[in-house]
Amino acid sequence: MSAVDVVVMAAGKGTRMKSRRPKVLHRLAGRALLDRVVESAGGLQPRRLVVVTGHGAEEVDAAARQFAAAAGVADCRTVLQSPQLGTGHAVQQALPQLGEDGVCLVLNGDVPLIEADTLRELVRACGGERLALLTVDLADPTGYGRIVREGSQVRAIVEHKDASEAQLRIAEVYTGFMAVPNRLLRGWLGRLRNDNAQGEYYLTDVVQLAVQDGQPVVALRTQDPLQVEGVNSPLQLAALERALQRRQAEALMEAGVRLADPARIDIRGRLACGQDVEIDVNCVFEGEVVLGDEVRIGANCWLRNVRIEAGAVLLPFTHIDGERAGASVGEGASIGPFARLRPGAHLGPEVHIGNFVEVKNSTLGRGAKANHLAYLGDAQVGERVNYGAGSITANYDGANKHRTVIQDDVHVGSNCVLVAPVTLGAGGTVGAGSTITKDTPAGGLAVARGRQAHLAGWQRPKKAPK
Amino acid sequence: MSAVDVVVMAAGKGTRMKSRRPKVLHRLAGRALLDRVVESAGGLQPRRLVVVTGHGAEEVDAAARQFAAAAGVADCRTVLQSPQLGTGHAVQQALPQLGEDGVCLVLNGDVPLIEADTLRELVRACGGERLALLTVDLADPTGYGRIVREGSQVRAIVEHKDASEAQLRIAEVYTGFMAVPNRLLRGWLGRLRNDNAQGEYYLTDVVQLAVQDGQPVVALRTQDPLQVEGVNSPLQLAALERALQRRQAEALMEAGVRLADPARIDIRGRLACGQDVEIDVNCVFEGEVVLGDEVRIGANCWLRNVRIEAGAVLLPFTHIDGERAGASVGEGASIGPFARLRPGAHLGPEVHIGNFVEVKNSTLGRGAKANHLAYLGDAQVGERVNYGAGSITANYDGANKHRTVIQDDVHVGSNCVLVAPVTLGAGGTVGAGSTITKDTPAGGLAVARGRQAHLAGWQRPKKAPK
Amino acid sequence: MSAVDVVVMAAGKGTRMKSRRPKVLHRLAGRALLDRVVESAGGLQPRRLVVVTGHGAEEVDAAARQFAAAAGVADCRTVLQSPQLGTGHAVQQALPQLGEDGVCLVLNGDVPLIEADTLRELVRACGGERLALLTVDLADPTGYGRIVREGSQVRAIVEHKDASEAQLRIAEVYTGFMAVPNRLLRGWLGRLRNDNAQGEYYLTDVVQLAVQDGQPVVALRTQDPLQVEGVNSPLQLAALERALQRRQAEALMEAGVRLADPARIDIRGRLACGQDVEIDVNCVFEGEVVLGDEVRIGANCWLRNVRIEAGAVLLPFTHIDGERAGASVGEGASIGPFARLRPGAHLGPEVHIGNFVEVKNSTLGRGAKANHLAYLGDAQVGERVNYGAGSITANYDGANKHRTVIQDDVHVGSNCVLVAPVTLGAGGTVGAGSTITKDTPAGGLAVARGRQAHLAGWQRPKKAPK
Repeated sequence: MSAVDVVVMAAGKGTRMKSRRPKVLHRLAGRALLDRVVESAGGLQPRRLVVVTGHGAEEVDAAARQFAAAAGVADCRTVLQSPQLGTGHAVQQALPQLGEDGVCLVLNGDVPLIEADTLRELVRACGGERLALLTVDLADPTGYGRIVREGSQVRAIVEHKDASEAQLRIAEVYTGFMAVPNRLLRGWLGRLRNDNAQGEYYLTDVVQLAVQDGQPVVALRTQDPLQVEGVNSPLQLAALERALQRRQAEALMEAGVRLADPARIDIRGRLACGQDVEIDVNCVFEGEVVLGDEVRIGANCWLRNVRIEAGAVLLPFTHIDGERAGASVGEGASIGPFARLRPGAHLGPEVHIGNFVEVKNSTLGRGAKANHLAYLGDAQVGERVNYGAGSITANYDGANKHRTVIQDDVHVGSNCVLVAPVTLGAGGTVGAGSTITKDTPAGGLAVARGRQAHLAGWQRPKKAPK
Repeated sequence: MSAVDVVVMAAGKGTRMKSRRPKVLHRLAGRALLDRVVESAGGLQPRRLVVVTGHGAEEVDAAARQFAAAAGVADCRTVLQSPQLGTGHAVQQALPQLGEDGVCLVLNGDVPLIEADTLRELVRACGGERLALLTVDLADPTGYGRIVREGSQVRAIVEHKDASEAQLRIAEVYTGFMAVPNRLLRGWLGRLRNDNAQGEYYLTDVVQLAVQDGQPVVALRTQDPLQVEGVNSPLQLAALERALQRRQAEALMEAGVRLADPARIDIRGRLACGQDVEIDVNCVFEGEVVLGDEVRIGANCWLRNVRIEAGAVLLPFTHIDGERAGASVGEGASIGPFARLRPGAHLGPEVHIGNFVEVKNSTLGRGAKANHLAYLGDAQVGERVNYGAGSITANYDGANKHRTVIQDDVHVGSNCVLVAPVTLGAGGTVGAGSTITKDTPAGGLAVARGRQAHLAGWQRPKKAPK
Repeated sequence: MSAVDVVVMAAGKGTRMKSRRPKVLHRLAGRALLDRVVESAGGLQPRRLVVVTGHGAEEVDAAARQFAAAAGVADCRTVLQSPQLGTGHAVQQALPQLGEDGVCLVLNGDVPLIEADTLRELVRACGGERLALLTVDLADPTGYGRIVREGSQVRAIVEHKDASEAQLRIAEVYTGFMAVPNRLLRGWLGRLRNDNAQGEYYLTDVVQLAVQDGQPVVALRTQDPLQVEGVNSPLQLAALERALQRRQAEALMEAGVRLADPARIDIRGRLACGQDVEIDVNCVFEGEVVLGDEVRIGANCWLRNVRIEAGAVLLPFTHIDGERAGASVGEGASIGPFARLRPGAHLGPEVHIGNFVEVKNSTLGRGAKANHLAYLGDAQVGERVNYGAGSITANYDGANKHRTVIQDDVHVGSNCVLVAPVTLGAGGTVGAGSTITKDTPAGGLAVARGRQAHLAGWQRPKKAPK
């Protein structure tokens, strides 16, 4: 295959988005539109990626470089289109960055679901020597440029307003994607004219120039309208989001995952599932989430960047956010309801985390339990530890964070505070209501609380008169 | 425009609702059907509002007066229709309350989405001298009275069962809304007859009388079927609810708000959004909610009567109910997950409220934090205060509520109790596990806890034999 | 009616389910497909139930017996089909278990929504002497066996691939359900041949044999496609789940229940509702849930095996799981948001349970309150008790569970621990921050906490240099 230079159109303002954010940086399923386009482009291992910026150029520029790096595209350049005089003008700005030879692949930064396979096919259709257009059949092509064919050859793209009765009945329309040999493109771009109502240079005019020149123009017709759907407004963005979510849900189900409601799952990133995974209604997955065999995710769970091992059960209303550090839940563990795991929470097998419990930057050994209203932060918790209701690791002294070590088989009573740095020796017990500031020996009982006293004659306050 | 007297039909039982509540008091998107109708009527600044009651008259009467007051209608009267002998009979009951001159506008208490603009147009079509009917084209008009026209004039409303083949093909049907000069109405109502199968007086018979009298009858055809859709059963109520929610969601998106799923948002009241607001799945908004620029609302949040300032972030499972007192969240604040703000919670900029934290009737200064399992009630919290995990303001002595004052830069340790009334002096520290009953000086450390003791030979209880 | 022997086909692997679990044990709305089929069969009080097992035979065998017992079918047998040589072969395995006389009713373990009434009609159509097929009209019958009729008689089932142009236009297809006299079935099964492409014995071939024998074949056409829809993949399972949930939601609404969104309710078991019940979005009901008159269920509630008495209100994010022991909420009680009731939680009238509160195996008397961040386990709580924020019953000593008794009118302060076994005498008060290990007398004040001390010169730790 010829070397491919990718041009991504990313200059548009997206007025209908009514946003301060440049349109191509709006997110679909958790990722910027442009990010998705660049990733697909990256799948072709292009020689070069040229992003045409305009509105919000600085922001788009920075983002594009980051996306390109993530997509493994080493040579990423941006060119500024200012003023913006049409799609042909946009590619003209990119022209100096394109190679002498090779193929130019034109993508749109606001058409996010294009797949690398489709792009590869388009480049193949171009074959290094032909203008190749990506087209699609639409049930309602109103407003789109119709593809006028003569057998396998394209004769013209006719704008809706210029189309004859017969042409209006054509369902095949141009998608905005094309692949074209650089050497041909260079000639055509120089001949574009702006003598139209908008005074703009249209990239689609290269079709007419190709036909004039007797150059072949071919069309690759995609069967998947979602890949070529663009985003111009929050309504379109939401519609595409739902279509993508539906598609992702179906792919999961095809792989054997049972979803209680395919219309009520949101995956914004990658969700990898083992066998016999069940996911209840209204769950959200962000970043990288891995669910082992027979994992069950209850209703309304929210997970980001976490690995759940086989057989673990998340009860409803479990919130896990591993952020950058990640988090993990061991085999057969039970979490929730109303539990929250934060970055660095690493739970061993058979761990139980119950309601209103928060765990952050802590490891818990096999079979450890924190079942009720508790906080474990910066702690190392041994096996079989029972961490009482209402107990707290005071890991922050107002300036620094310190670690708490709770060795195997320790039993911490209710409403205790463990003031870090502190170590509770193996097998020990901490009496309820104790504030522990010093290490406790293994096997013993540690208590720190006031003596119980009774005041018999005491009168409870009376309701004050208003 | 002529003076308008509005008659609202609100006597029906709504048998299919299977409810003790009168039908017109059922709620759509948080407001009674009748409330919505009265509000739209109020938009015309009518001379008088006459509500025809019947089933649940007392309850409807009280509600109607309240709705009228809220809608700015000073003259609201109710008339009892008992027994209920049809729509014509209903308006007959209202007749003594109508002015000599002016126009009678007939509305239905169970058709809630009618808009003032449409009513205004209908009154204009009446022009103080013609019978004007509101009509709509239905895809499936089965069961509805067809509008038989002769040019712009209406010749008849033909009931479905009486319609000819040709008439059955008419898509235009009567909606139940009409505007009619009082002087004409008076004559016609007197001539209504009940010699039909049901033995009822039908208001629609005025069309026939008008035609007999050679009076013009005009029809205003609305393009919006939702405005004239009635509610007769919980199924219809739910269907209309979803249609309304969908419409509200679309209006938000048109204004630039990004919704993760337009099918999973419920707005029951008014939601005002700044620029670049993002709302995740399954959120509910009640009452008056204001979201500033770039506010992000996480999945499953529930908000009522609260103002969220620009840049604040609500993490999933945040519940805020300002009730009557209201609540507010400052710029750049971060709330949740699993946080609850209650009436009178007023958080300054950059405040952090974390998981399992409840705030009620308290102000928090800039940058104050309560990140874990805590309760702040009736408290005045200064800037940069750090309120420890598990700490509680004991604001209620069993009879009265007292205030807690925590001055700037105080650091409250974990699992403390602050027994109100109490003041913690600026910059002070409260040691973990302390119960503070007396004011603490600025800048110092306050501690109130037992001394830690160890019992080496202590045996943990054994599992009792069953 | 003749004696009925039911044969349930339950041998299939369900390859497309991509699951270790046998297909018929997958769950629809919380119950195994086979369980549903067996329950409907049970409605006919059959003489015998014969389940044909194959893949996962052991597991299916055990489950089938349990389902049969629950459905009141005393005589349940399973037969193993191995190898699996078609539907005819499956019934051949069951044949030795069928009576000499009577009717064989053939069901499919993966067609879960069939209703007893339909089966009864099918047996009636059979009349103890005719082959009776259950059929349905499909909008798209592609791939299904068409029913070729001659008046009321069936002449043949023609497979899609063998069908003529005219036959392809037939919408009526065979559903896999049949009723056939045992004596006829016996003869036909012996004459089945496997000289077809798959080398299998097809049960549908009995139609041809019946016609050859001059025996009448009748068809009962169901109007309800859902009853005959089978499950072969997670996608089909999810689609049927949603259809069933939609149907259940509609039935609730027909009965007067107001649902905020019929597309966002999941009922997996039985939900009984009194009058004027309102259920907000995204609620899940499992097992047996009873809601009294005027109960309101807020958004995102999750309920299993609980009884909610009249007028009680569940605020959003309430999680109640009665498991086997059950749970109950008294009249006019208010629960949530973010509350969790566990097995054996029995709340009296007007009880208030607030945010981040967990109640397990405890009874609460009329008007008792636990409004904030608290745990009540194994407790007996009297009337009008006020249980303070952050307070905990320490019911578990690491080995055994003990009970806490809080008599009427006790006021427990904030962040207390009640170390069970312990009794708080009526009308007493426990001071905030107390750990109570001994019984407290009635009417007095009990306190157990350290004395408050101030350290004026104390320096708060400084941020350590990194």
